[in-house]
Amino acid sequence: MSVAVDCYRSIRRRTVDLCAPLTVEDHVVQSMPDASPARWHLAHTTWFFETFVLAEWAPGHRTPEPLYHHLFNSYYNGVGEPFARPRRGTLSRPTVAEVLAWRRQVDDAMSALLEDACEEAHRITEVGLQHEQQHQELLLTDVKHAFASNPLKPVYDKAFGAPRSVDGSSGMTVFPGARVEIGHSGDRFAWDNEGPAHQVLLRPYALAAELVSNREYLAFVEAGGYRDPALWLSDGWDTLNAGEWVAPLYWWREGDAWWTYTLAGAAPVDLDGPATHISFYEASAYASWRGRRLPTEAEWEHAMRSDQGLAESAGTAWEWTRSSYGPYPGYRPYAGALGEYNGKFMCNQFVLRGGSNYTPEGHARLTYRNFFAPDKRWQLTGIRLADD
Amino acid sequence: MSVAVDCYRSIRRRTVDLCAPLTVEDHVVQSMPDASPARWHLAHTTWFFETFVLAEWAPGHRTPEPLYHHLFNSYYNGVGEPFARPRRGTLSRPTVAEVLAWRRQVDDAMSALLEDACEEAHRITEVGLQHEQQHQELLLTDVKHAFASNPLKPVYDKAFGAPRSVDGSSGMTVFPGARVEIGHSGDRFAWDNEGPAHQVLLRPYALAAELVSNREYLAFVEAGGYRDPALWLSDGWDTLNAGEWVAPLYWWREGDAWWTYTLAGAAPVDLDGPATHISFYEASAYASWRGRRLPTEAEWEHAMRSDQGLAESAGTAWEWTRSSYGPYPGYRPYAGALGEYNGKFMCNQFVLRGGSNYTPEGHARLTYRNFFAPDKRWQLTGIRLADD
Amino acid sequence: MSVAVDCYRSIRRRTVDLCAPLTVEDHVVQSMPDASPARWHLAHTTWFFETFVLAEWAPGHRTPEPLYHHLFNSYYNGVGEPFARPRRGTLSRPTVAEVLAWRRQVDDAMSALLEDACEEAHRITEVGLQHEQQHQELLLTDVKHAFASNPLKPVYDKAFGAPRSVDGSSGMTVFPGARVEIGHSGDRFAWDNEGPAHQVLLRPYALAAELVSNREYLAFVEAGGYRDPALWLSDGWDTLNAGEWVAPLYWWREGDAWWTYTLAGAAPVDLDGPATHISFYEASAYASWRGRRLPTEAEWEHAMRSDQGLAESAGTAWEWTRSSYGPYPGYRPYAGALGEYNGKFMCNQFVLRGGSNYTPEGHARLTYRNFFAPDKRWQLTGIRLADD
Amino acid sequence: MSVAVDCYRSIRRRTVDLCAPLTVEDHVVQSMPDASPARWHLAHTTWFFETFVLAEWAPGHRTPEPLYHHLFNSYYNGVGEPFARPRRGTLSRPTVAEVLAWRRQVDDAMSALLEDACEEAHRITEVGLQHEQQHQELLLTDVKHAFASNPLKPVYDKAFGAPRSVDGSSGMTVFPGARVEIGHSGDRFAWDNEGPAHQVLLRPYALAAELVSNREYLAFVEAGGYRDPALWLSDGWDTLNAGEWVAPLYWWREGDAWWTYTLAGAAPVDLDGPATHISFYEASAYASWRGRRLPTEAEWEHAMRSDQGLAESAGTAWEWTRSSYGPYPGYRPYAGALGEYNGKFMCNQFVLRGGSNYTPEGHARLTYRNFFAPDKRWQLTGIRLADD
Repeated sequence: MSVAVDCYRSIRRRTVDLCAPLTVEDHVVQSMPDASPARWHLAHTTWFFETFVLAEWAPGHRTPEPLYHHLFNSYYNGVGEPFARPRRGTLSRPTVAEVLAWRRQVDDAMSALLEDACEEAHRITEVGLQHEQQHQELLLTDVKHAFASNPLKPVYDKAFGAPRSVDGSSGMTVFPGARVEIGHSGDRFAWDNEGPAHQVLLRPYALAAELVSNREYLAFVEAGGYRDPALWLSDGWDTLNAGEWVAPLYWWREGDAWWTYTLAGAAPVDLDGPATHISFYEASAYASWRGRRLPTEAEWEHAMRSDQGLAESAGTAWEWTRSSYGPYPGYRPYAGALGEYNGKFMCNQFVLRGGSNYTPEGHARLTYRNFFAPDKRWQLTGIRLADD
Repeated sequence: MSVAVDCYRSIRRRTVDLCAPLTVEDHVVQSMPDASPARWHLAHTTWFFETFVLAEWAPGHRTPEPLYHHLFNSYYNGVGEPFARPRRGTLSRPTVAEVLAWRRQVDDAMSALLEDACEEAHRITEVGLQHEQQHQELLLTDVKHAFASNPLKPVYDKAFGAPRSVDGSSGMTVFPGARVEIGHSGDRFAWDNEGPAHQVLLRPYALAAELVSNREYLAFVEAGGYRDPALWLSDGWDTLNAGEWVAPLYWWREGDAWWTYTLAGAAPVDLDGPATHISFYEASAYASWRGRRLPTEAEWEHAMRSDQGLAESAGTAWEWTRSSYGPYPGYRPYAGALGEYNGKFMCNQFVLRGGSNYTPEGHARLTYRNFFAPDKRWQLTGIRLADD
Repeated sequence: MSVAVDCYRSIRRRTVDLCAPLTVEDHVVQSMPDASPARWHLAHTTWFFETFVLAEWAPGHRTPEPLYHHLFNSYYNGVGEPFARPRRGTLSRPTVAEVLAWRRQVDDAMSALLEDACEEAHRITEVGLQHEQQHQELLLTDVKHAFASNPLKPVYDKAFGAPRSVDGSSGMTVFPGARVEIGHSGDRFAWDNEGPAHQVLLRPYALAAELVSNREYLAFVEAGGYRDPALWLSDGWDTLNAGEWVAPLYWWREGDAWWTYTLAGAAPVDLDGPATHISFYEASAYASWRGRRLPTEAEWEHAMRSDQGLAESAGTAWEWTRSSYGPYPGYRPYAGALGEYNGKFMCNQFVLRGGSNYTPEGHARLTYRNFFAPDKRWQLTGIRLADD
Repeated sequence: MSVAVDCYRSIRRRTVDLCAPLTVEDHVVQSMPDASPARWHLAHTTWFFETFVLAEWAPGHRTPEPLYHHLFNSYYNGVGEPFARPRRGTLSRPTVAEVLAWRRQVDDAMSALLEDACEEAHRITEVGLQHEQQHQELLLTDVKHAFASNPLKPVYDKAFGAPRSVDGSSGMTVFPGARVEIGHSGDRFAWDNEGPAHQVLLRPYALAAELVSNREYLAFVEAGGYRDPALWLSDGWDTLNAGEWVAPLYWWREGDAWWTYTLAGAAPVDLDGPATHISFYEASAYASWRGRRLPTEAEWEHAMRSDQGLAESAGTAWEWTRSSYGPYPGYRPYAGALGEYNGKFMCNQFVLRGGSNYTPEGHARLTYRNFFAPDKRWQLTGIRLADD
């Protein structure tokens, strides 16, 4: 696996490009502990290359500021104590300009290194670029949260595209029981948590040809779905009450209409679009209300690998599965501090599959395992129903 | 499934017998939100029969106090709003004597009913008795928590037996890969969550012939296991730090020795006994330190069903599995409010298998799925290692 | 100052007598961190004599259990670390019977000692008896809180007397400006915080001849007083919102009527009785709504010392003053650990004057300074208006 | 009272000038709920004039954004619901440039208005300018907190002056008992809470000629002052333990030396400078350790008005008094929503007198009553000892 300098530069540039519509102020704020300032994303992705590549293979490289090592470490205890996550938005320094200068310095060093680096350096660079792409999506969802929380409802990009509409007419696709293989194999990049490939037994099941639309989800809201504990997981019901949830995140009523916040600004809810900013708890309650269930990740992956055309319908919103995020049989994390990347989060989270229209093109795969805690809803997360 | 009056009375009596060593005061206290007062257990198990059996099939039955319906509802939203769990210990009334009188009244009504009840009434009575047995174990662990939290360290029963010792000499038993059936089938009682029986694929694995002993666990403690984040799940490390954990629950140092609290009073840690009062996080960290892992529940069940003699070693402490608690394929919860019994907890918990020496005889099964959140340690929970 | 054995025994006996209507269970519960279990009051007042008198002057006295020294220390850091206050209700041991036996043992030792004790022992015994009387009132308010919090609304004593009615017809009494003396002087017992006596300047003021009645306070409630921030101190408004206050503590609506909990059980609010269970914040807001203010403690004391008949109207409910609780000029706390009795609370509290119908007869004085934080309302606290 | 346009512009300009050393990013962050972003100060002080002056007397004035009315209302419930204080740092918009543009627009409108305004408009403009000066000091302390919290320890202004040194050789000045007048009278501006002037009785007292120095305070730290509960108020001891206080805010050890953060950057503690960033709790504990006490605000004001030369020593750090912040006899708050300025904070706070070297020149007076809660230490607060 060898990373071309062009490829490196192109992915790195895209992160900066995503910040183009932002003011300096927009780079700094943190609207909740789960989110990070845009500038932090710019810095942390740079820290990744400095810490895991340059520190190892570019002995001449000097960081502009040793404290960056602490400030922009997200959660890797193996390489030092990270700065407290909920306080990322209290830092006004380094400035955006200083972070961008650091990015350029690191990119130059990386470009020089890649010309003549060992295989392991290339391999970790590839990890760093995939990591960068994950943060590109997080950057957008974090900016969205900050903008949506601001009563002024600033616009990120008036032309920012909405997700593809859901064709409400399609039904369920049926799959027979089978012994199937899931998980990643082969030489192309995949995260450690996508492997090893292994066989699982599936009982006959059906999977919806499309995601649940806002129109469908609205029916649940208006039927009192948020007031009936029988539909909810116990922890979900507690979360709903504590957060006073009455609808998906970012929805609000204006007179008779439901509005929402999008990166193109406030707008009426697009009834034909996929329901998004849905937590696992809401997805699970919605499925109960419909007399259906969420798919397992194995069912999802098998269906998408089939030639039934379902793969077309994926990629507009991450799809909650009912699979708790855990290790595949025989899972081995990366060696060293990078082993903290995925493995240490294997509890209290659920797997999401597919991808969203914020996901960088080419980043996700059929074997890709995204994961979030069941109460989170600031990601572009939606629902695809399944049934026995 | 028909429940004999003798059987009903025998199980009900055991709950009262377990309270024999308690003073009136001991029945009232609640030492943490997870635990309940002994008197609450006496009342709640009675509420179960009154609510789900007598209210349906004994039209002449009158509750002594309609508010008991609210006060002793644990979490069944379907039959009314439960009294707030963390405030159970603030109630001085009804008195213990009043609760015991209520138990007698309900037991008389139940005994009369069972002579001539329909099949469904018998079926739910059976559920109620299994439920009662679960609370018998909880009653002991809750009393233990209250006593251990009291600086006076009161004794529950000087003669209370310690768990069987672990024979440290036994190693791992190896199982080949296989397609096996797990889960409950047949006519005998099982919880809804134990079914349906279904097939799973197992890769070759090894399972320890015995539980981890206190001697083995102490080595982990003394090697700094509680200070090395690399061994811990991320949420586990946060929990450890927030709770300032340095050893299993109830352990403390006196000079060079580790002591613990048992229902027979304070005592030096029995190095030959199984390590107990271990959270999932600690079990997982210990396994990492040993270069092993926890078993899945399917691996556990298959191994126990084999004739390799492992079943002998179970039953002294509940064994954490790495399986998140979720529905089996095709799972259907009980109908009505009883459907809240198991199904609504299927997230953020891990499955425990086996049983403990607090578990009523005959209660657990090889298919039994106990479950607790990964940070809980006041149950009699321990570790059995597995490996690929 | 010499304490007769009869006097000692009489005051000590009254505490036990106050517990006569309680079940064992009632002695154990703690319904909020501010309140303590009745049994704790029985034990703590005993601890006081054992710690501050017997430990000093009765060398032969042996405590039945050295840990009582820790468990029943309220807040005297000078004599050891107190057991955590919010966890007093988690202790089931020592039992009520054990505490009563300890009381008898200490009372016997105290009685023997008092026959022939030094003046200092008598002086501290007097402090201990006054302390005991304070806890007699707290015991009642704490039991009341626990009973009122229980949906069963148990009765403490059906015959428990209501406070004297307020004669709504009386108005304000006017006092000219003056240089007056306030504070305690002379040989009779008073707390350290009541002295030294000193002069203050009063401007002309008026003081209501009576406490605000429930009828008057209800008008405030129904006029929207709890919804108008302009009437409230900033911290008071925050407290009201956090606690969702809509009326005094223990009030609730049943149809058109307001009910309340009294030690004689649930009852309609007595419109002619004094408004009680009012926080300082509510008292202050009520006064604003009336266009009046609360008196200073100096105004109150001067008025009560005058021969205008106002002293008759006091003693049914503690009266909030606008005086922050601080040291009088020249204040000196008691020597030693007893110095923690009053002095260390001289911030964030307001002075209350008068006494309530829960106050032991003969306990309060015109110079008596009771004090509580401005958000507390479980004491028998009410309002007397003042004006310039 | 008439405000000259020059005076208005000069004070307004100073706020902008104070922000000159700040980057855009520095304007945005909020490092704790008590502090506000610099940009918020720029906006809120502008909001004051728009809300209380222009909205009343400049009918042609149009706000650039009606939501500013909500976003930059600090705590005036009388004019609408304020945006939540702890979330001020989550707002990236309006940008700094937009706020500065709004300032200019408001300043132009105000300048036009002042040429020909009624007396009341001038009076409230004067209030607005005094208010602006208060925020100038808060802006500096808030920036200081943000910078000190940042591991990079940015410099605000390398040339920022340190407070005047304390001449350790001076002792106590003695004042005889007296009947004295305190409080504001006359035509010059003063806050409502400084009046009415009134007489108080003082007993003989002594007041230190100077503030406590860092050298003196360090002796307290090193003598274990932060570990002896006997020196502390009860709430103070709880605060110390919860916050793990071991020294004044911003102090840290490097080897054998104590360092601190100043607006000129990190520096060794200046032993000759006044101790600052001291809470009331610490001031009170320090005074106890010295066998002294804090002065009352009347003692302080009387001493400063005397010709004993003490007034020279004031103005380097706000001096805690033992006087709880309450209304003077006969106090009347401003009419209307401005009445919320001072009156509604008259509980749970203590009075500070003097001024600091962050206080705008000419802002403070001998009658000036600053006030903060006793646990706050991010203001420039220090200690002057008193004695009976």
